[in-house]
Amino acid sequence: MSKGFNIKGKGLIVVISGPSGTGKDTVIGEILKENDDICMSISATTRDPRAYEKDGGNYHFLSEESFKEVVKKGKMLEYARYCGNYYGTLSDFVGQKIESGVDVILKIEVNGARQIRENCPDAVHIFILPPSIKELQERLKSRKTETKESFEQRFGLASQEMALAADYDYIVVNKDRSACARDIWNIICAEKLRTSRIKNRTDHIIKEVLYNG
Amino acid sequence: MSKGFNIKGKGLIVVISGPSGTGKDTVIGEILKENDDICMSISATTRDPRAYEKDGGNYHFLSEESFKEVVKKGKMLEYARYCGNYYGTLSDFVGQKIESGVDVILKIEVNGARQIRENCPDAVHIFILPPSIKELQERLKSRKTETKESFEQRFGLASQEMALAADYDYIVVNKDRSACARDIWNIICAEKLRTSRIKNRTDHIIKEVLYNG
Repeated sequence: MSKGFNIKGKGLIVVISGPSGTGKDTVIGEILKENDDICMSISATTRDPRAYEKDGGNYHFLSEESFKEVVKKGKMLEYARYCGNYYGTLSDFVGQKIESGVDVILKIEVNGARQIRENCPDAVHIFILPPSIKELQERLKSRKTETKESFEQRFGLASQEMALAADYDYIVVNKDRSACARDIWNIICAEKLRTSRIKNRTDHIIKEVLYNG
Repeated sequence: MSKGFNIKGKGLIVVISGPSGTGKDTVIGEILKENDDICMSISATTRDPRAYEKDGGNYHFLSEESFKEVVKKGKMLEYARYCGNYYGTLSDFVGQKIESGVDVILKIEVNGARQIRENCPDAVHIFILPPSIKELQERLKSRKTETKESFEQRFGLASQEMALAADYDYIVVNKDRSACARDIWNIICAEKLRTSRIKNRTDHIIKEVLYNG
């Protein structure tokens, strides 16, 4: 997947949501593997790092006090409390990436996506759907870690989340991992050519013709 | 350039504008060559067919009376008078194509594009820019058919048209034919995944999960 001539300039914030079992991680992995200048956001969290986890690797580890301080300063693009810990997206991290022309994928759930809609109106929101209820159930069941309770909980959450797919800019169906990754990459490339985004980089051509013709 | 899984359903109306000398025809030719289920609209005109022209080939040839009748019936998506003849886009032709899942490219100028904006709010509007004033001038001059007067006329028209690029949904720069064709194809693929367009084809997945889970 190569980028066209026009794909330059500021990076894009790409929100990707979808219930457990839709294969978000695999699809995002494929996008990151196949393309340059795109990364995942590294979330901030107040949970304790596991033995193998380094700060700034999987997460930015913050104390609850520091986390709340960042929120207070308006420097958390979205955040939520989950199982007693806070998780959030640092605006400084995302800001630096997009200013340097790198696209940032935020893999977040529907409530986080809503906060991004408010705080980053220029972000692009993509919802990944499973191809059918059958596939979703099978994928959830095939997780060896799933007990019957957690399956039912996740399935219930999946249906709640899917009901909000219509709030997203784009819907992609993950029937085939590569096709789904290509769909998302097409969306990213196309969104960069939106007049509102590309205008400041093409205005010089128009002005040149208008005033020096 | 292959289509992802999701690219099915109704065809898209794709308006492509750009001044003479931006290489619209070459880029569109590349898109048509590389992809299936996409065609150019065949315009209706009141001008006389040339010896080699067949009705329904390059144009649908209509008498002035018939043309005006079609306009009166509201069956011309856009039209204009140019050098004493009428030219227009037949809504029946475009409608049949998109209903059968074929995308239709309308290569029209800025006034026609405005009429399409009103009559087909779902159409996607793309403006092609030359990479620089120098390239535009060179491409116009390299046309053997161009006299000094017609060059100046076309260049003047080019600047008028380019001033309206900001009214389009997307701007692509034709520095390299293949890259520009790929940019436009990305836009077409992405636009089909817009929630407003794909929703009626994914609703069954969501409903299945919501009500049968």
